[in-house]
Amino acid sequence: MRPVAIVGIGKTAFGAFPDRTLRSLAVEAGEKCLEDAGVSPSQIEAFYLGNFAGPSFVGQNHLAPYIAGSLGLTGVPCTRFEAACASGGSAFFHAVSSVAAGLNDIVLVAGVEKMTSQTTPKVTEILAGAGDMAGEGRAGATFPALFAMIAKRHMYQYGTTREQLAAVAVKNHANGAKNPLAHMRKVITMEQALAGKMISEPLTVFDCSLISDGAAAVVIVPLERASEFTDQPVRILGIAQTSDYVALDAKADITTFWAVQEAAEKAYKMAHVSARDIEFAEVHDCFTIAEIVATEDLGFIKKGEGGPYVLEGRTCLRAERPINASGGLKAKGHPVGATGVGQICDVALQIRGEAGELQLDRHSIGLAQNLGGSGATAVVTVLGGI
Amino acid sequence: MRPVAIVGIGKTAFGAFPDRTLRSLAVEAGEKCLEDAGVSPSQIEAFYLGNFAGPSFVGQNHLAPYIAGSLGLTGVPCTRFEAACASGGSAFFHAVSSVAAGLNDIVLVAGVEKMTSQTTPKVTEILAGAGDMAGEGRAGATFPALFAMIAKRHMYQYGTTREQLAAVAVKNHANGAKNPLAHMRKVITMEQALAGKMISEPLTVFDCSLISDGAAAVVIVPLERASEFTDQPVRILGIAQTSDYVALDAKADITTFWAVQEAAEKAYKMAHVSARDIEFAEVHDCFTIAEIVATEDLGFIKKGEGGPYVLEGRTCLRAERPINASGGLKAKGHPVGATGVGQICDVALQIRGEAGELQLDRHSIGLAQNLGGSGATAVVTVLGGI
Repeated sequence: MRPVAIVGIGKTAFGAFPDRTLRSLAVEAGEKCLEDAGVSPSQIEAFYLGNFAGPSFVGQNHLAPYIAGSLGLTGVPCTRFEAACASGGSAFFHAVSSVAAGLNDIVLVAGVEKMTSQTTPKVTEILAGAGDMAGEGRAGATFPALFAMIAKRHMYQYGTTREQLAAVAVKNHANGAKNPLAHMRKVITMEQALAGKMISEPLTVFDCSLISDGAAAVVIVPLERASEFTDQPVRILGIAQTSDYVALDAKADITTFWAVQEAAEKAYKMAHVSARDIEFAEVHDCFTIAEIVATEDLGFIKKGEGGPYVLEGRTCLRAERPINASGGLKAKGHPVGATGVGQICDVALQIRGEAGELQLDRHSIGLAQNLGGSGATAVVTVLGGI
Repeated sequence: MRPVAIVGIGKTAFGAFPDRTLRSLAVEAGEKCLEDAGVSPSQIEAFYLGNFAGPSFVGQNHLAPYIAGSLGLTGVPCTRFEAACASGGSAFFHAVSSVAAGLNDIVLVAGVEKMTSQTTPKVTEILAGAGDMAGEGRAGATFPALFAMIAKRHMYQYGTTREQLAAVAVKNHANGAKNPLAHMRKVITMEQALAGKMISEPLTVFDCSLISDGAAAVVIVPLERASEFTDQPVRILGIAQTSDYVALDAKADITTFWAVQEAAEKAYKMAHVSARDIEFAEVHDCFTIAEIVATEDLGFIKKGEGGPYVLEGRTCLRAERPINASGGLKAKGHPVGATGVGQICDVALQIRGEAGELQLDRHSIGLAQNLGGSGATAVVTVLGGI
C-alpha cells in the first residue's frame, strides 16, 4: 500500500441556509477544495460522495453524478456512500483505500447534507432510519432517546454526572464561538447548559448536536505526488472503518462502542502509534455523552473516566489533549453526510497551522472519529504532518 | 492488480412478496451465496451492499451493517453504495477493485430492494429521484417519460419502430417464462405487446420493466485462492464504472448512453477482448428502448441498428448472441438495488453451465451492463470461465 496525502481541503459554513440547495453547497465545497489543491476537474480520477439522506431531506437521489456533473466531472466513477452519520467518513475511507492500493491517483471526496428544509420532527424521523426501525423505531426510540439510554447506563456504571455531560457542551460552544464556519457561535455557561430544555432525560437541548446544512471536501493523492500540488501535504497515517450491530439491544455493553475501539486499534496499528501519541482529535459528539464515550473508546482515558476528563478541563483548547477544537458537532454543526469529511478538513487545517484563533500549540498528529447510528459504523483516521 | 473470481452466487426469487422484509430478502441471498461458496461469515473481510432507496421504500437506512449483522458479520467495513439503478453494479465494481488491489481477499457483495410495499405512483415518484428533480422532476418527467423521449428520438433518427421495441418485450418474456426465479413467467405475443396500455407514448406497459422485491449476492476472492472454494470459479475479466450528467438535456445525444460506451471500452480493454468476443449478455432493459440502445452502445451492432437486431431474432435464446437470457429486467423483474448483482449472478450461472432450461450453447464469455438513471451511471462487467 502506498502512503496517501491530503493536498486540498474545502468547506462551506455549516448552518441553516434556506436559500441554498444541496447541490450548491456540495459544489461550493468541491470548488474551494479543487482550488486549494490547484487541481482541475479533468484531473480527478474518481469522485467519492458521503451523503446520508438526500432523498428524504430534499427528494434527490443518485447524488454522486448529480453533484459531479456540476463540478465538471464526467467519465469517471462517481459513487455515493451511505453509512448513516459516518457516510462522509466511509466515503473518505474507501477513497483513501483506493489511492493506497494504486487504483487511483487523484481523487475528490465530498460530504454533504441539507437538513433544515424539513421540520425538526421530520428530521428526527429521517435520522431514526439510521437505527433499527423494526425494533427501536417501532418502539418510538429516536436518536436522542437511544443516546439518553447510553448516558443513563454510563451514569449508573461509572457515576458520570449531568455536569460532566454539560462540560462537553460548554467546551464545544466556547470553541465554536471562535470558528468562523461554525453553525452556532455562542458561548454558553455551565448554568445555562444544565438548565436547558429536557429533550430525553438526562439529555437537554444543550446535549444534542445541531441540525445543519453544509458540505466539505478533500483532494487526496499518493504521497509521492503530493509536492505537485502543495508544500503542506497532510498524511493519512492510519485509517479503518468497521461495524457492529445496528440495534442497541444487540450490543454487549451500550457504554462502549466496540466498532470505535476496533477501528481505533486498526488505525493506530497502521499508523504505528498509540492513543497517547494523538495530540488532538475531532470526535463524533452527536450528543455530549458520545464525546465522553469516544474519549474512552479511543483510549485517551480509561473506560468510565471520560466524564471527569472533560469536566477537569483536560480536553479544552489550551489543555493537554484538545478535543473538538472546531466546536464539534455540538457547536460547529452536524450536516450528517458532511460531518466525517468536515472533521478531516478540521484536523488537516490544524496540521497545516491554518486554524486561526483556534490554532493548537501541538498540531503534528491528530485524529478524526466518525460514528454512524448508535455505533454500527465507525471510521477512525490518524493524520499527521510530513 | 490481481485477477478476481466469483466463487459463490445466491439469489432470491424476484417478485412481489408482501410478507417479506427487505432484510429477510438480503439475508436469504447472502446465506445462499455463502453456502454456495462454502464460506462462513467470519471469513468475510468486507461487505458491499447495493441499495437504491431503502429509506424511501421501507423507511430503513444504514442498511449495510443492518443486513450484515443479521448475516453474522460485524467488525469489518460494511458499506452501502447508491448509484440509482446501478447501485448493485457499483457495489460490485468497488468490491472487485478492492480485491484486485489487494485490499481484501474474501468479500461479500449483495444488492437488495423491496419496492412493492409502496403504491405504483409512490414508486414512480421515488424512482424519479434518480433523475434531475430540479429540472426533469419539476417538469413532471418520471422515468417512463424520460425513456419515451429517448425512444421517440431513436425512432426519428434511426427509423426504429414500435414492433422493434415490442420485440424486446416478447423475447424477454419468452426467456423469463423459463426462469424459475423470474417475477413474471408469462409468454406474450407481438400482438399483445403492441396492444398494451399506453404509459408514455410510444412506451406501453409491456415496454416497462417490473416493480419487484428481491436480492442477489456474490462472494469474490483473488483468482489464486478460488480453488479453496469452488471448482467452477467465474473470472472477472474486465470491469468499469463511469458517469455522465444526470439530466437528459445535458447530454450531447440522448439516443446514446455515453457512459455505457466509455465503461464498455474500458472493460473490453481490461479484458483484452472486443465486443464481438462477447457470446451473451445481460443488459439493463429498464425499458425496451434501453435494451436496443445498450446493444448499440456495447458495440454488438452499429448505432441505429439495434431495432432490426432484436426484431430479426438475432438476440434470442438460440441465436447468435443471446441478450437477457434470464428474462431481463422486463420479465425477471427489477428490484432496483439488486439488479446489478443479479445480472452478475445470471451471467455466472450461464458460465458455470447451471442455467437449466435457459442454458446457452456458447457460454464461456458473457457481459453484464447495469445503468443508473437515464445514463448518468454505467457499470460494465466482462465475465469468463477459467
